[in-house]
Amino acid sequence: MGTDNSPVPDVEGAVLAAREMTATGDTIVLIGEQSAIQVELKKHDVSGLALEVIHSPQTVTMHDKPSQVHRTKPESSMAQGLDLVKQGKADAFVSLGNTGAVLALATLGSLRRIPGVKRPAITTFLKVKDRMIIFCDLGANADARPEWLVQFGIMGSIYAESVLGYQTPTVGVLSNGEEEGKGNELVRAAAALMSEESRLKFIGNIEPKELIAGKADVVVADGFVGNIALKSMEALGDYLFGLMKSKVLESSSLLVKIGAVLMRPALREVYREVDPFEIGGAPLLGVNGVVITGHGRSNAKAVKNAIGQAKRAAQSGVIAKLQATFAGGEDA
Amino acid sequence: MGTDNSPVPDVEGAVLAAREMTATGDTIVLIGEQSAIQVELKKHDVSGLALEVIHSPQTVTMHDKPSQVHRTKPESSMAQGLDLVKQGKADAFVSLGNTGAVLALATLGSLRRIPGVKRPAITTFLKVKDRMIIFCDLGANADARPEWLVQFGIMGSIYAESVLGYQTPTVGVLSNGEEEGKGNELVRAAAALMSEESRLKFIGNIEPKELIAGKADVVVADGFVGNIALKSMEALGDYLFGLMKSKVLESSSLLVKIGAVLMRPALREVYREVDPFEIGGAPLLGVNGVVITGHGRSNAKAVKNAIGQAKRAAQSGVIAKLQATFAGGEDA
Repeated sequence: MGTDNSPVPDVEGAVLAAREMTATGDTIVLIGEQSAIQVELKKHDVSGLALEVIHSPQTVTMHDKPSQVHRTKPESSMAQGLDLVKQGKADAFVSLGNTGAVLALATLGSLRRIPGVKRPAITTFLKVKDRMIIFCDLGANADARPEWLVQFGIMGSIYAESVLGYQTPTVGVLSNGEEEGKGNELVRAAAALMSEESRLKFIGNIEPKELIAGKADVVVADGFVGNIALKSMEALGDYLFGLMKSKVLESSSLLVKIGAVLMRPALREVYREVDPFEIGGAPLLGVNGVVITGHGRSNAKAVKNAIGQAKRAAQSGVIAKLQATFAGGEDA
Repeated sequence: MGTDNSPVPDVEGAVLAAREMTATGDTIVLIGEQSAIQVELKKHDVSGLALEVIHSPQTVTMHDKPSQVHRTKPESSMAQGLDLVKQGKADAFVSLGNTGAVLALATLGSLRRIPGVKRPAITTFLKVKDRMIIFCDLGANADARPEWLVQFGIMGSIYAESVLGYQTPTVGVLSNGEEEGKGNELVRAAAALMSEESRLKFIGNIEPKELIAGKADVVVADGFVGNIALKSMEALGDYLFGLMKSKVLESSSLLVKIGAVLMRPALREVYREVDPFEIGGAPLLGVNGVVITGHGRSNAKAVKNAIGQAKRAAQSGVIAKLQATFAGGEDA
């Protein structure tokens, strides 16, 4: 029930995923308002697909306060989905809804943190020349401590290795300058800790242009800075695409309009390369189970890809590796 | 001597400015390596222009550490220019060089802070539909206190009123969500103070997309976050323009290439609207004199526009207004 247009892309994405995954023995469980889901399912050919529906009487919206959802909506589809993972009845949970609510429900209510992990992180993938960069935290922790950033780097590395298949992933910290000593107090302290951390291949400060250029495989920031950086990029991208469109539409020149039509294949390629739907979803790192969250704007392709990411994460055994890595660490 | 291609655009920009300003009685003083400046001046028709040259034996580069420049290069063109303002021999100083060095020299060495101002701020203008937004701090203070952000808002408002001619400018704080209560500790504390500050028309939290949309006339952030937000936007803009160019160049389709040529007028309009050279420079707020800094990438037009901004600021009496506003306040 999570996308802005739910349950339309949610159900279609699940059907698309089921067409690929039923053959490999996977079942996709749709949790939400049963009648609405059934209406959508009827639009597709679902014969032979391993799709189940679980009715949920409550839906978490973007307006729900994350910290209160476990009390105000105890029987939400989110809570039910996370419980399935906790009980071992599902291998992963995917949500395109309120990420803060998923995080709150997962950490406070059901899955909880992996023992030894001090704070979970919300991540995203950035696609750089067909390679994925893991970028976190996007807002789980608006204020962070240096050692949390170190753990984000370790968790990101393990995920990059286990799920994305990278060998010795490189890790950087987002900063306002690449030189050592740049950054605010938090970044300088975190960089000092990371450079001494044997479980990390730390390559230092990463500026936004280096983040986009893919200089590091994993880039960490506190949740406030990570969120602002990502939203600044999204905002400028939307602005530029919008401006370009409006300049063509407003143009009185027929040649400009013809030019825009002729250029369309190249523009489509540009868009394909920055297409956020290509990726679909990214993990909540540090919760004790595979949880993949994606953007509310997601279309069916994005939903399908988020489910694919969930499957790869579940199969990789990344949670067990994270548990082993942090076992014995302090918990606060 | 400040631009990346100095002194070529620096001198040409000064000549362009002098052509407009000599008639109104203004003199432009070029400070730097005299022989290099003379070589450039000979390329232009400078007859009748009020241009002076002051030789400086030292040039601050982007590699100089800001905090050490006053000791390592005491006779730099930057130091000399700021001294002219301090001594009342110049009404304003413009630099396209190392902003951190200008700031350090101005605050530590010569002009110092306006009494009552706790910290200066590095600003930039963002152009939104032919209107300027003042955005700061871009890095004067990587770590900030809530009351500094309040002062940035007040200084930005006074500058917007005095120099840009805005009536009752609106002020916002950059945050990861527009709802009250969003933000990190610093932002929440600053927002609480700003909403009680009678000298501000505070309109609350501003997300990056609202910053770009021009929702507030003045947007404040700590220097680390402001720097990351601006660099994230710059990086994505460069990336998208570069990607578009490369997709057209790589395309094997003649039609795409023809389309790109036909679309050029519209693309040029897009670029014109986001053209950083249009603005040229923005003030260091809080130092005791008019100091305008611009980007090292500046071309002659940008240099000319930065000088124009300096003239408008000097004529507006904004420094006197800032002095009157903060007089009697504590200094640390």
